[in-house]
Amino acid sequence: MPPDHIPIDPAALFLGPKAENADVLERLLLEALRDHVFWRRNFHPEDGFQISEQDKRAPAYEASISTLSQELFGLLAELKNGVPFFSPRYVGHMTADLTMASLVGYFATMLYNPNNVAAEGSPVTTRMELEVAAQLAAMVGYDPDRQWGHLCSGGTVANMEALWIARNVKYLPVALYWAVAELADELADRPLAVRLPDGRQSFIGELDLWALLNIRGEDALNSLDAFLALRPDDPTWSDRAWKAMHRNSLSELGFQAFGLRLAHDFDDALPPGVVLVPSTAHYSWAKSCRVLGLGEAQLVHVPVDDHFRMDPDALAGLLAELAARRQPVIAAVTVTGSTEESAVDRLDLLLDVRTRAERELGITFHFHADAAWGGYAASLTRNPDGSRRSHAQTIDDLATDAQADDAWPDAGLYAAICALEHTDSITIDPHKLGFVPYPAGAVSFSDRRLRHLVAVDAPYLYHEGRSDEGFIGRYILEGSKPGAAAASVWLTHKVLPLDYSGHGRLVALTMRGALVLHSALAAEHWGEFRIVPLPRPDLNIVCFAVGHPSMQTLEELNEAAERVYQALSVSPSRPTRALDYVLTKTVLRAEEYGEAALPLVARLGFTADDYRRAGGLAVLRCTVLDPFLVAGGARVDYVRGFLDTVRTEFERALRAGE
Amino acid sequence: MPPDHIPIDPAALFLGPKAENADVLERLLLEALRDHVFWRRNFHPEDGFQISEQDKRAPAYEASISTLSQELFGLLAELKNGVPFFSPRYVGHMTADLTMASLVGYFATMLYNPNNVAAEGSPVTTRMELEVAAQLAAMVGYDPDRQWGHLCSGGTVANMEALWIARNVKYLPVALYWAVAELADELADRPLAVRLPDGRQSFIGELDLWALLNIRGEDALNSLDAFLALRPDDPTWSDRAWKAMHRNSLSELGFQAFGLRLAHDFDDALPPGVVLVPSTAHYSWAKSCRVLGLGEAQLVHVPVDDHFRMDPDALAGLLAELAARRQPVIAAVTVTGSTEESAVDRLDLLLDVRTRAERELGITFHFHADAAWGGYAASLTRNPDGSRRSHAQTIDDLATDAQADDAWPDAGLYAAICALEHTDSITIDPHKLGFVPYPAGAVSFSDRRLRHLVAVDAPYLYHEGRSDEGFIGRYILEGSKPGAAAASVWLTHKVLPLDYSGHGRLVALTMRGALVLHSALAAEHWGEFRIVPLPRPDLNIVCFAVGHPSMQTLEELNEAAERVYQALSVSPSRPTRALDYVLTKTVLRAEEYGEAALPLVARLGFTADDYRRAGGLAVLRCTVLDPFLVAGGARVDYVRGFLDTVRTEFERALRAGE
Repeated sequence: MPPDHIPIDPAALFLGPKAENADVLERLLLEALRDHVFWRRNFHPEDGFQISEQDKRAPAYEASISTLSQELFGLLAELKNGVPFFSPRYVGHMTADLTMASLVGYFATMLYNPNNVAAEGSPVTTRMELEVAAQLAAMVGYDPDRQWGHLCSGGTVANMEALWIARNVKYLPVALYWAVAELADELADRPLAVRLPDGRQSFIGELDLWALLNIRGEDALNSLDAFLALRPDDPTWSDRAWKAMHRNSLSELGFQAFGLRLAHDFDDALPPGVVLVPSTAHYSWAKSCRVLGLGEAQLVHVPVDDHFRMDPDALAGLLAELAARRQPVIAAVTVTGSTEESAVDRLDLLLDVRTRAERELGITFHFHADAAWGGYAASLTRNPDGSRRSHAQTIDDLATDAQADDAWPDAGLYAAICALEHTDSITIDPHKLGFVPYPAGAVSFSDRRLRHLVAVDAPYLYHEGRSDEGFIGRYILEGSKPGAAAASVWLTHKVLPLDYSGHGRLVALTMRGALVLHSALAAEHWGEFRIVPLPRPDLNIVCFAVGHPSMQTLEELNEAAERVYQALSVSPSRPTRALDYVLTKTVLRAEEYGEAALPLVARLGFTADDYRRAGGLAVLRCTVLDPFLVAGGARVDYVRGFLDTVRTEFERALRAGE
Repeated sequence: MPPDHIPIDPAALFLGPKAENADVLERLLLEALRDHVFWRRNFHPEDGFQISEQDKRAPAYEASISTLSQELFGLLAELKNGVPFFSPRYVGHMTADLTMASLVGYFATMLYNPNNVAAEGSPVTTRMELEVAAQLAAMVGYDPDRQWGHLCSGGTVANMEALWIARNVKYLPVALYWAVAELADELADRPLAVRLPDGRQSFIGELDLWALLNIRGEDALNSLDAFLALRPDDPTWSDRAWKAMHRNSLSELGFQAFGLRLAHDFDDALPPGVVLVPSTAHYSWAKSCRVLGLGEAQLVHVPVDDHFRMDPDALAGLLAELAARRQPVIAAVTVTGSTEESAVDRLDLLLDVRTRAERELGITFHFHADAAWGGYAASLTRNPDGSRRSHAQTIDDLATDAQADDAWPDAGLYAAICALEHTDSITIDPHKLGFVPYPAGAVSFSDRRLRHLVAVDAPYLYHEGRSDEGFIGRYILEGSKPGAAAASVWLTHKVLPLDYSGHGRLVALTMRGALVLHSALAAEHWGEFRIVPLPRPDLNIVCFAVGHPSMQTLEELNEAAERVYQALSVSPSRPTRALDYVLTKTVLRAEEYGEAALPLVARLGFTADDYRRAGGLAVLRCTVLDPFLVAGGARVDYVRGFLDTVRTEFERALRAGE
């Protein structure tokens, strides 16, 4: 750490497990509120006060205020049945305490009620939204002059939008092919060139459907640009050409009409386009395939290895198969921090697979990184000036933090995170590892031209001459959204910059907790119980299964895990105040995970057949988001307490199962 | 107004144009903050304080807090360039001041950071979300035992989800047809009955594609239920039958594979399904058609009358045409409060058109109401006990408020609002006329079974035995979302119930402002200027065009409107502090509006040809959301001031145009 650079102090970031920073938060909130109050007073003070002190004596006024106070007390009482995300005792879902910056930023801005659909209603926060999106893109390594990104309601919508755009760019060359045919009379002497994935040049009119569906996104966009510029002498051309492309696009025609034309114009109607995801992919990918009309059946799960990372050889094999039966690939989705295991796909290797497929098989596709969970880990690789830290430096930075035997991150993981810069799009959720309130998802694209493929206009929002950047709603899936969320992320990034000393350090602290917990689980002895943790996590989620000789089937073991989970989670019968620790549970389903879970199953003493019959392996899941879990300072050892509590609950589950 | 029922006092609802209620809001916010602080302290007090007072003396701690304070001051300074939504001087976009209840409810809950994707992380606010959705459904008139609804990020996503579900239920009978065929061996003696839109019964296996695509949604769901119960003696049947249906569904297959099978199995492959919307529909309907793979070309605009309401005769004529060419209708979308004009489609008449089409043409479709803007107006029709107020009572309630010549709402408008109860789904945005912060959209369905057509499972969130209601994310387009938004709406509904004395009164106050402004515009004389307002608005948006003899083309007139709009809106060159009034502008585009705008064009002295050549008519647009606009009490007459300011700007625009 350079001496002039004070690293962030987690003690100053949050309200604190015991609200130790209550005085700071209260002061800042009051500042924000009063500042807003006097802003109102200063807007046309000559109007005078609308609500007089006499008005406040009216029975209706007093009745309303009493109702509000009374109902607020009711709400506050109910909220106490909430979940203690703020406590090191909570290692359940991906929800954490929030930075004070995010709370104050959100609240201060909510008073102004900006709507980031268009800058006209959010002159300040639309700029902030584009600014934080640019910061995220820079952290990842996208070219600042070419990237485009924005905030959205969350990872599901971010991923859906990326797939929507991937779908449109996949079919763009077909639209261009038809548009060129439609305007052929004007283009007799000017064929439209296009670059093939192996680097050769061709003319778009000469390609068959398979070739059209295997143009790299960037090359398709270059061809679109070239098409719009084919007749520079004709001032109406560009507009007419754009409209011709749009008329022939999937966006305009829809799948039914588009499909009929494909079948009619190209003899060899190809099988439906597929989307490749690792077995660990979030359930929302199925949702996106359904919404977008692609079909869940076209979502192909690529096997993962026993670290739950997409297997590059399996991907290569699958691509060869798909190419052989000429089935187009719309997108490959990789995961940086899987929801269940926090596994990080080896993007460095997987991107090589695509490069080889382009060269050797002539196929290509959009490459998306679902880094909703793990995206912020890229901050570990950045110096404050934005340059990349070496792997050795990063290991050094973390040496005092990590207690595991092997240094974290290993070279492969580090390379995987750095390789994010070569993806076509990425989802990162500030409301996860960014420690800000919902709703704050984000999606970024490496090539800003992609957004034009989904743009629509609203007559009441689109004003010519104003920067099109101001009307974000043109280019995204959602419409209205809170400017407060943008300010919340913006202020947090000011306090916690996206480099190794800021957000990176926070990620490192949670990682330290996860590694300590993982080691402790592996080292723990509970007599006849057998604790089987998943391999060392790539990020900060620790999962483990527990066996016992008296549980002779995997079904019994899964049941015991369910009982322990029930005992250690918030539900109507178990309010927060009755809980010592909180964790959660997931199932590594045989259908999706295939071979990947078999080593764990074997260590528990079961066979692949047992696994398939049981349908899956239930594991307890601990998301470590509290930077204080192993920080010391508190009067208790949380890891020790956690292990003892889990043991007690397993013993109880065993007795209940008898 | 019954004497025992004190109507709400708008003075007690908001912070106030001059922050007159600052003391109340500050007290309640502090209460909420401190209450939360002590909740943290009381969770395992034996842990001790994590952050000590000594820690707070560390340079890194002090540096962090200084940075936070400093950057917050920067944010507060920037926010002052925000838009004065709180002021009666703001009559621009659909953004208003927020209820104090919503601000306090949001803030109090944000401290707990609940995520409403599943009740496990939001035990309190998931219940509140379902409760407010049920309140909205009850206000509309859906059967409480059959409805299903939830909050979402906004109207765009709400509408998209409704169309997604409409798409799936449209194609459900085809999936059932194929599933029955697949399991034919087991069903030899048990054919699956289905009700046709004209009331006749048939068997699903005997229908052609056209008939399959014209089953009422409720009947399709009944057939699905019947299918799942066809072999009550076989305990595995229901599950297998469901899976067979899903295997054959559009969700699973996607449009490409589904389309190929349609073409293969049914000789008469039909044209693509269409979505009908009025010409006034929001731009996001085009977006939804693109996202869902339906195609923007399949979005058919039904002409509106000169009150900008969908023309029932035009709808009937269009349906006859579509039936004649056997083009399926996926959904008809009506608008309750159009974005540009606040026009309310005559649902009562339009629903009759559907009933006649079912009986006479044998066609049917999903009927959706986009009441994102106007939904809360249904509260006007409700007594506190939930019963419906008569039209006469409603006129009486408003008599003291409305100053227009004719009573508002007229019988047709009232019938249109009451008829919302017969729709299949509805979008209502609490973050619009509900006066709560973004993000708070809502969508409701009259038949809760519809949600099963889009359900997906997440292994880490779906726990058998727990109520499926708890995992809202299963059934909706989005995933994570802020529980704080649910609490914000919930607390506002407590203070402002969804009846004529609560939210209804607030709607009435904004309506009064709109009607006064509308009358004033119509009565105003500006010498040679000609002010042409749109017809009396159905809800609280007032639009008007302005002509002048020296502006001899519609293009000049549109340019002048643009100049006036530029002068009266917030932009980098015109910060809030420099503005006296704020309005906005829209264009009634010839392409969408067709004949509807011609009466206005004629009153301005132009012809239909002029209109088509100009591409549209620019009108200034005033959204009245401030209950104080014509309340008196302030030292200025806002309507007078507004008219004078607009006049000054038009004079300036005229000089600039010379």
